[in-house]
Amino acid sequence: MPYDQLIHFVKEANILSAVESLLDWDSETMMPERGLPARAEELSMIAAIAHERRTDPRIGDLLSRLDGKASNEQQVANLREVRRAYDRATKLPADLVRKIAHVSTIAKDVWGRARADNDFPAFAPILSQLLELKRQVADLIGYSGERYDALLDEFEPGMTSAEVSRVFSALRGPLSDIVRQISTSKRQPDTSILHRHFPRAAQETFARRMAEVVGFDFSAGRLDVSKHPFCSGSFPGDIRLTTRYYEDFFSPSVFGVLHESGHGMYEQGLPAEHAFTPLGQAVSLGIHESQSRMWENMVGRSREFWEKFFPEAQAAFDSLKGVSLDAFCGAINTVKPSLIRVEADEVTYNLHIILRFELERDMISGTLAVKDIPDAWRAKCRELLGITPQDDREGCLQDIHWSMGSYGYFPTYALGNLYAAQFFAAAKMAMPDLPERIRRGELRPLLDWLRSNIHQHGQRYRAGELVQRVTGQPLSIEPFLGYIRGKFFPVYGL
Amino acid sequence: MPYDQLIHFVKEANILSAVESLLDWDSETMMPERGLPARAEELSMIAAIAHERRTDPRIGDLLSRLDGKASNEQQVANLREVRRAYDRATKLPADLVRKIAHVSTIAKDVWGRARADNDFPAFAPILSQLLELKRQVADLIGYSGERYDALLDEFEPGMTSAEVSRVFSALRGPLSDIVRQISTSKRQPDTSILHRHFPRAAQETFARRMAEVVGFDFSAGRLDVSKHPFCSGSFPGDIRLTTRYYEDFFSPSVFGVLHESGHGMYEQGLPAEHAFTPLGQAVSLGIHESQSRMWENMVGRSREFWEKFFPEAQAAFDSLKGVSLDAFCGAINTVKPSLIRVEADEVTYNLHIILRFELERDMISGTLAVKDIPDAWRAKCRELLGITPQDDREGCLQDIHWSMGSYGYFPTYALGNLYAAQFFAAAKMAMPDLPERIRRGELRPLLDWLRSNIHQHGQRYRAGELVQRVTGQPLSIEPFLGYIRGKFFPVYGL
Repeated sequence: MPYDQLIHFVKEANILSAVESLLDWDSETMMPERGLPARAEELSMIAAIAHERRTDPRIGDLLSRLDGKASNEQQVANLREVRRAYDRATKLPADLVRKIAHVSTIAKDVWGRARADNDFPAFAPILSQLLELKRQVADLIGYSGERYDALLDEFEPGMTSAEVSRVFSALRGPLSDIVRQISTSKRQPDTSILHRHFPRAAQETFARRMAEVVGFDFSAGRLDVSKHPFCSGSFPGDIRLTTRYYEDFFSPSVFGVLHESGHGMYEQGLPAEHAFTPLGQAVSLGIHESQSRMWENMVGRSREFWEKFFPEAQAAFDSLKGVSLDAFCGAINTVKPSLIRVEADEVTYNLHIILRFELERDMISGTLAVKDIPDAWRAKCRELLGITPQDDREGCLQDIHWSMGSYGYFPTYALGNLYAAQFFAAAKMAMPDLPERIRRGELRPLLDWLRSNIHQHGQRYRAGELVQRVTGQPLSIEPFLGYIRGKFFPVYGL
Repeated sequence: MPYDQLIHFVKEANILSAVESLLDWDSETMMPERGLPARAEELSMIAAIAHERRTDPRIGDLLSRLDGKASNEQQVANLREVRRAYDRATKLPADLVRKIAHVSTIAKDVWGRARADNDFPAFAPILSQLLELKRQVADLIGYSGERYDALLDEFEPGMTSAEVSRVFSALRGPLSDIVRQISTSKRQPDTSILHRHFPRAAQETFARRMAEVVGFDFSAGRLDVSKHPFCSGSFPGDIRLTTRYYEDFFSPSVFGVLHESGHGMYEQGLPAEHAFTPLGQAVSLGIHESQSRMWENMVGRSREFWEKFFPEAQAAFDSLKGVSLDAFCGAINTVKPSLIRVEADEVTYNLHIILRFELERDMISGTLAVKDIPDAWRAKCRELLGITPQDDREGCLQDIHWSMGSYGYFPTYALGNLYAAQFFAAAKMAMPDLPERIRRGELRPLLDWLRSNIHQHGQRYRAGELVQRVTGQPLSIEPFLGYIRGKFFPVYGL
C-alpha cells in the first residue's frame, strides 16, 4: 500500500501542475488583456499549493519506507524519478526559490530593455546576481562532476557536462566545415518563393492538414494562435499546440506546426494509465526535442514528404503555382550562417547551441566574467559560424533564457537534433521502405515505431539508456553528420 | 489585522473557485473530447481544496473575533456575507456533500435517459432520494419560515418562500389574463421571417457587434461557442460569454448574446479592488438575471433599439431585406403559450416559473408525492398556460435542474424579470430621454446608471434592500405588468 499512497500524492501534485499549465496556455491563447492581474494571483496560488504537495514530508517518508522494495521494473522507474524530483524540490529552501523567482522576474524586464537599447552593461549586474543564485542552487542540489551538471540535470536528467562536452567537441569541427563548404557553393537556392503572399485562412487550413497528416490526433488536442509557438498539455487526451501566421512567409506556420506536432504526438503517445506519474511523462527536454525535430526536419523538410504533399500546397496557395518541387525543396532547405539562433537552419543551429553551452558552462564555473561575455560571444561566433555580430542585440542579448535563470537548457536543443538523427536512422534500419512510405504519404508506420520504441515507456529509461536500447549505440554524432551530408550536399551540388 | 487576515483567506478560496470556473469554461468551449478524464480529476481536486479553504476553522475564529467590530459599512457587508457563506459551508458534513454530489451525478444520467424514454417512473426513485437529501440540507442549514427557505437562500440570499409566494400569487392571475387576451387576438405576427437562412459567419460578426453595441468590453472578455450558452468569470477583467448559432433561426445567437452580455456587463462592472470578496461579487442570481433580461428584452427587443440597428441587420443578412421594421419587431415579440420553458417568450416565461415554484415547494415540504408530480404538472400547466403536455418529456421531465439537486433556483428567473422591469422603470424616471437615447444607439447612459446604482456595490446590499434603494419601492409586480402591457398590447392591437 505505501507505493499506492506515494503514487496518490505524486498524482495530486502533478494534477495541480496540469492545472497550472492550462492556466498558462489560456493566458497565451485566450485570456483577454485585462485578465492578467487575476491570472497572476491564480497562477501563484496553484504553484504554491503544487509546491507544498511536491515537498510534502509524507512523500519523503514513503520513499524511505519503499527504498529497495520495488516489486517490478515499473515501480523501480517511478520510485527513481519520484525520488529525484522530491530531492530537487526539497533541497532548495523556500526563501531561495522565492528569491530566484523574484530576481528573474525583474531580470526578464531589465533584459528586455537592455536588448532594445543594446546596453549589455545595464543587464550585467542582475545577470551576475542570477548566476550567483544559480551557483547556490547547484551546490544545494549537488553534483559529482562539476557545478553545471546540477543545472543541466534539471532539463536532461542523468546528462553530464563532460558528456555534452565530448559530443559537442566532436561535432563542432566537422559541422563548421560542412557549413563552410555549403556557404561557398556556387549553387544557392532561391528563397524568395517562400516570401510571397500566403493568405492567413489558407495557412490555417494547410497547417491543420499538416498536423493531421503526420498523425496529430485532434480528438485529443487543439491548434491555436499565440505570440510564441509552443506545445502544452499534461494528459495524452488533451495536448494543445500553438503557432503564428505571417502572410508574407510560408515557413513559420507550416514547419512550426510540424515541429509542435512532433512534441504533441509524443505527449499523445504517453501511456494514459500512468498519467501524472513519471511513467506517464516525457523523458527529458532533449528526447522531447528529438520528436519535434524529426517531424519538422527529417520528415517535414524531406523531398519524399513533399513529393506527396507539394501538389496540395500548390492547390492551397496561388503563390506556389509554377514553382518546381526542386526549387521548393531547395528553398526550405537553405543553409546560411546567421546571427540569430531562432532563425537558424538545421545545420547551423547546433553551432549556435555549442556557442551558448561553452559560454554558460564557463559563466557558472566562474572562469568567464560577466563583463567579458560580449567579447567571448563575438569570438566564438566568428570561430563557429564565420560571422560576427555588429552589436549585442544580435549577440549575447538575443535570448531570453539567461534572464529567466535557465542555464543548462540550451544543450537540450542540440541533443534533440542528435537523438533525432540517431532514432531516425534506427527507424530506417527497422523499416527499409520508410522513404517509400513517406513518399506515399504513409506516416503512420514511423509514428507507430516511435510509439512502441519511445513514447509508451514514459520515464522508464533515462535518455542515455533509451538511446542505447532503441538504436543499439550510445549517443553519437555520426547519424546526424550522415543525415546532414546526405541531405544537403545534393541540394548544394557538393 | 484580523479583518485583513480574514479577507486573505476568503480571497484564496475564491481564487481557487475562479480556477474551477475557468476549467469549467474550458471544458465547455475548448477542451478536446478525450480530455475529459483528466479534467474530471483536476476539477474534483480544485473543488476539494477550495472547500477545505472555505471551511478553514481559522475563518470561523476570525469571524468570532470580528463580531460587532466592523469599522465601516464595507466591512459590515463583507463580514455579513463571509459569515453566511462560512455557515452554509460548515453546517453540512463532508459526507453529506459528497453523497449529494454522487447521487446527483447519477441522477443527471438517469434523468437524461428517462426524458429520452418518456419514463418518469424510471426517474422517480432517485428524485425521491435527492429530495430527501436536500431536506436534510435544509434542516442542517436552518430556516425560520419553511424548509424551502433554506434552499432558496442559496441562490437568492435573504429571500423567503412567503415573499416569493406573495409576489407570484399576485402575478399569476393578471399574467394569465394577458396571455389569454394576446392568444385570442386576431392580429398575430409572422414569425417565419426569423426562420430564413442566416449564414453562420454573418451571425458571428453581428452577434459580436451586438455585444459591443450594448457595452460589453472585449478587452475584458470573450465570446465563444458552447452547446448551452452561459456567462463565466470571476474577475471584472476577464468575463467570458458563450452562444450557439443556428443557420435557420435568427434569434438564438442575437438575443442569446444580448442576454449573456447583460450578465457579462454586470460582472465587468463589479469593483475590481474588491475582487474575490463579497463586495466584489454579484448580489444574487435574481439580480444577475435582471441585468441579462433588461438588455435582452427591455433594450434588445425594443422598437427603439431596432430603429437604430435594423438597417445594420439588413445589411448583414440578405434574408431580412424587404422586411419592414414593424414586421421584424412583431416577430421578435411574439407571445404564444408553449410547453417548453427555454423556448418561452418573455410574457409566458414567468408562468413556467410559477408552475415550477409551486410544485417544488410542495415537493420539499412533502405535500406533493413524487409519483404525483406528472399529474400535478399537467394540471398547473393547463391552469396557467391553457395548454397541456402530451407526455412528460414536454412536461415534468423537461428541465435538468431537479436532477442536479437544484431546488430554489427556478424562482430567481422570474424574480430577475420583475427586478429588471422595476430597475428599468427607475432608470427611465431618472433619464426621461432614455428611449430617445436608445433610438440613437446611445446605450452608455443606461449602462452607466446600472454601474453606479447596482454593479459597483457588489454585495453591499442584499437584493431586497438594493431594490428599495434603487427604485424607492419594495419588490413589486406593477412595473413588470406595466411594461408588458405597454409593449405587447400595441403589437397585438389590444
